[in-house]
Order: sequence, then structure tokens, then C-alpha cells
Amino acid sequence: MTVQDLSESALLARIFPRLHRSPGVLLGPGDDAALIAAPDGRTLISIDTQTQDQDFRLEWPNGYRTTGYDVGWKAAAQNLSDINAMGGSATSLVVSLTMPPATPVEWVEAFADGLTAAIVGLGAQDCSVAGGDLGRGRELAVTVAVVGTLAGAAPVLRSGAKPGDTVAVSGTLGRAAAGWALLESTVPLDSLSAELRSLVENQCRPLPPLDAGPLAARAGATAMLDISDGLMRDGSRLAHASNVVLDFDPAALEPFVAPLEQAAELLGIEATRWVLGGGEDHGLLATFPAGIQLPQGFTAIGSVQAVVEPPGSGVRISGQTADTVGWDHFAD
Amino acid sequence: MTVQDLSESALLARIFPRLHRSPGVLLGPGDDAALIAAPDGRTLISIDTQTQDQDFRLEWPNGYRTTGYDVGWKAAAQNLSDINAMGGSATSLVVSLTMPPATPVEWVEAFADGLTAAIVGLGAQDCSVAGGDLGRGRELAVTVAVVGTLAGAAPVLRSGAKPGDTVAVSGTLGRAAAGWALLESTVPLDSLSAELRSLVENQCRPLPPLDAGPLAARAGATAMLDISDGLMRDGSRLAHASNVVLDFDPAALEPFVAPLEQAAELLGIEATRWVLGGGEDHGLLATFPAGIQLPQGFTAIGSVQAVVEPPGSGVRISGQTADTVGWDHFAD
Repeated sequence: MTVQDLSESALLARIFPRLHRSPGVLLGPGDDAALIAAPDGRTLISIDTQTQDQDFRLEWPNGYRTTGYDVGWKAAAQNLSDINAMGGSATSLVVSLTMPPATPVEWVEAFADGLTAAIVGLGAQDCSVAGGDLGRGRELAVTVAVVGTLAGAAPVLRSGAKPGDTVAVSGTLGRAAAGWALLESTVPLDSLSAELRSLVENQCRPLPPLDAGPLAARAGATAMLDISDGLMRDGSRLAHASNVVLDFDPAALEPFVAPLEQAAELLGIEATRWVLGGGEDHGLLATFPAGIQLPQGFTAIGSVQAVVEPPGSGVRISGQTADTVGWDHFAD
Repeated sequence: MTVQDLSESALLARIFPRLHRSPGVLLGPGDDAALIAAPDGRTLISIDTQTQDQDFRLEWPNGYRTTGYDVGWKAAAQNLSDINAMGGSATSLVVSLTMPPATPVEWVEAFADGLTAAIVGLGAQDCSVAGGDLGRGRELAVTVAVVGTLAGAAPVLRSGAKPGDTVAVSGTLGRAAAGWALLESTVPLDSLSAELRSLVENQCRPLPPLDAGPLAARAGATAMLDISDGLMRDGSRLAHASNVVLDFDPAALEPFVAPLEQAAELLGIEATRWVLGGGEDHGLLATFPAGIQLPQGFTAIGSVQAVVEPPGSGVRISGQTADTVGWDHFAD
């Protein structure tokens, strides 16, 4: 059975029971808009789209088939991460799913299950799917808007890093990029070790550290962002917004490189490239005043330095300028 | 110049200055999430997607070319209408734009101008574009999520209509559908009278009555929704949610039919069909306790009656059951 065999209301009736509910949703799906509690009088909001053949393939060169569950998980995870990166906690998602009429109903059900699994599995139990929109298109596309709360705290911006601060990351680096490279390779999925398969899983179902954002905010993080486009690219965004230099210590990045060496050797790629340029793990990059104890889950990877003109604000590795590698949606 | 000639940040730098700003946005575009004031401790939220060749054509059979301005206007208008239909006022939009790499930069700039023009032109000055997402796809797609406030009032749901209530509408009926029929016809755009062109404009740049929702809420509306899929279909949604019958008076609908007769005659279509089945004018359908003075802009079109089994809840015309005509995204 495909979605064109059902009316919109019949399809929604199959989706609704699969969605996680939480008490912060004062009015859930089914009316013109949902109503969400915003106890501190403010609402965080962000939006993100995934489009077939741009952000995922339905079938990859290595044989993996992306499931509805994967797409639902990733859509939720990357949006939850945006709230995390402000120091907040998500309270609701609204989800727009555009799909070809021949999309199997089972795919849509698995998509709803994936949304719920990510919300619950990543520890965002206070977040619900509060509403959505279904529509037709030639390709699958999912847009999620996420709403969240800072619970009275100040948001942690990109622009607050100060010379002397410690640079730290939470979560993994490069694993999703290594997974992408495996998916895009012709090395058959079945031949991969459990360790390599877990990299593929990090690409399809990322694991943002959702406790880390509020922890960092409470610990006094001066700046923070979600590493969605790569450490170098996102690092230079933070550096430019704060008008500072982020200087990374290669030795401190080594523990992120080592777990990728097996995949790197298999594919003939330098693992460091994934660590520096790979996004989509959705870890956090944050800066903290020097000398404070970093919150649990954060690892120091460098320091913030004052700008010297030229070359101005940006990222450095051991004091040397380095190309900004990473993902740009339009330019190469 | 097309979007592939610019980096994402260069493209954003062209968009941001074109967006309307309002003081309720505590933190605007540029970080992982925006921060919006929610003074009464609650947030309304809704999401809607428009996809090329499903919701609009870039070039229509009658020769009209959809502009970026049109798409931006309509994306804003239909989302603002969802907040209106709850009795609320929009405070911010977040906008995701997916487009082919060969999309002209001018198209994107016009899109941003259209968002702003709709916000200001429809009277939603307190609403800003607070954030967004840009991405690639094979087809153009726009998703907007809208956030709004009820300013302490209760939301007006679909489910509160009571037997004896008056049924009323605000805004126009059938004009956008007539405009769609003209666009889909081979009657050249240039040959249309100003009156017929204005129907095309209602399809491309709808005019939801954004003052009507809060006015209806204050007047004690018992139920309300946005007529986006047609009076009969949306009416039956309200009827089912409230477990009542909506009985429409054809004489009361006549003033909506008359302005469409010229287009109906030209195309050989019955104008009543547009009034009953046409969505996208984004007027409001609401019910009010009998005897109260309807708020400005509302016209009574019928009454709410108790359910008699069979045929159960639904819409009637002069007491007769009528086919539910209107737009369904999947079924025909």
C-alpha cells in the first residue's frame, strides 16, 4: 500500500499514535496550529530540511538502503542539536513530509517511529511532535522546525569567545563523514566489520550529545555551536562571530582520528580530513573561560587567541592557517 | 548569477537585509536557533510546505510565470493564516528554501521581498523572519514554520461548535480557485480583464484577513479554522471535530458566487464549485453563539445543527447532504 491509496486523514491516523507525547504540548496535532508551553516567556526556534539525493540517498553505492526510520531519526536529531547548541532543551517538533505518491505507507510509519526513537533515545523526553504537514513532491523531503526552552538561562551564542578561553568539543568528530564515505564506496555493506558498520550508523542515525548543551551553559560556556558542517568550517564561523582565532592542538584531536583509521585505510582517505572537515556528527564546539573544569563529556582541543592582522579571525592548527574544509550547500 | 555562484554565507548576506524585523525577536538569524518572545508563556506553532509543480508551477499554461515574490508572499500568507485561525497573532517565521543550483540569485532576493511584503501588507508587522535554512534540491520547495501568540486568550479550536450557533466566514471564497483555473487554462494572461487578473493574483498572492482571527476570538467564536482546502472539506473537518452538522444557506453564499461568474462563463465552469470547493483564499470559517453581533468582516452563511444518525456529523446545504468537494493531498 502506498500513500496515494489513502486520504490525508487516513494517513495521519496511522502516524499520530506513533508519535511521542509530552506534557509541554498544551494542544497537539489536529488543529490549525499547536500550542506549546514556553514557561520562561521565550521560545527558541530553528528549522532544517533534508532532501533526497542531497542529504541522503534512498539506495547507496555500497548497497545500504535508507529507511524511513533513518530519515525520521536524523531529522529529529539534527534539529534537537540546534537547540542543544544554544544551551536549551527542545519542547516540540513540527514536521513537514513531502513525498512521491508511490511512497509505501510502511515507509511513512517507519519515519514516524524514527522521530519518536530519536526523541526518546537521545534523551529529549520532554519534546513532542506537536504538528506537521503532508504533501506530494517528485522527491522525498523532510523539514523539521524545533522549538525549545532555555529555562530562564541566557542563550549561548557564537559570538562570545574571548582570547584565553579553552576550546572544547562534546560528542564525536568525523564518524558521520567516515560513514558517508563508506556508504558512497563500493565496499559491500555485508563485508564491513561491526566497527565500520557503526560509522555508517552514525551517518544515518546521528547521536548528538543532548545533555551537553545545557551543561555547558551552566558551566559558563562563552560561545557554542553545533558542528554540522565540520570542525574547521563551524570553527571559523564561531571565530568570525567572536572576532577571535581558534587554535586547535593536533595532539588533542588524535583520539578522534584513531577510531577512523580502519575505515581510512580501507578507502585510502586520510582520517584527519574527516575529523577536521566532516559534519553531521552534531557534536558541540564550545569555548570556556580558562581554568574552569570542563563539563562532563567535553574534551579540550585548543585555545582562543586574539586576532593578529593579517590574517584576522579564523581557525589555526598549531598556530598555522589551515584551509577551511567542510560542507557548503552551494559553493564547492 | 545563480545560487551556485555564491557561498551560502554570501547568499544569506543578500537575503538578511530584505527581511522584516520586529522587536519580539530577541535573537534573529545567524546562530543555531532564534529566540522569540512568548509573553504569555505559550507559543502557537504550525508548518506548511509549498512544492514546485504541486502547489505552484513556474510557468502556467496561460503564460503566467510565478515569481520568487509570489512564492515568498504565499508561503508567508498561508502560515500567517494558520495562526489567525487559532485567534492568535504571528510573532515569527522560520523559512527553509530548497532550490536547484541554477536558481537565479534575483529569484531568491524576490522571494525574500515577497515574505516581507506579505508580512507588512497583510498587517502582521509584529512578525519577523527569525531564521531559516538553505539547501539544494531538484525542485523548488519552501517550508515555513510560524510561531505566534494568543496574548493570554484561549485558542479557538475546531471542536467547539454547538447546535444553534451561527456559521460565518471572513475573507473571500473561491477567488483563488478561479485564479488557479485561469492559470491552468489556455486563455492568454494578456487577454484577461483587470477583474479576472485579480483572481489570478488571489491565487498567487492570497489575502488572508489577519485581523479577523483575534476579533472572532474576542467576540466569543466557539470554533474556527482556516479555509485552505475548500469550504465543504474544511467545513466537514470542523463539523466532525465538533460532532455537529453545519448547514449552509445557498442564498448567503450567492455574494461569493457573483464575482466569479465572468471567469466561470469564460471557462465553462460552475462558479458555485469554486465557492464550495476552492481553498487557498485562506479566509476563516467560524461559529458564534446565536444572536451575538458578528465581528467586522464576518458574514453569516448558515447555522450549526445537532447530529441526526444517519448520516451523522458533516456539512449540508439547505439541509441536504452534499458531496465533500475540495483538495486532498493524496486521494482524488
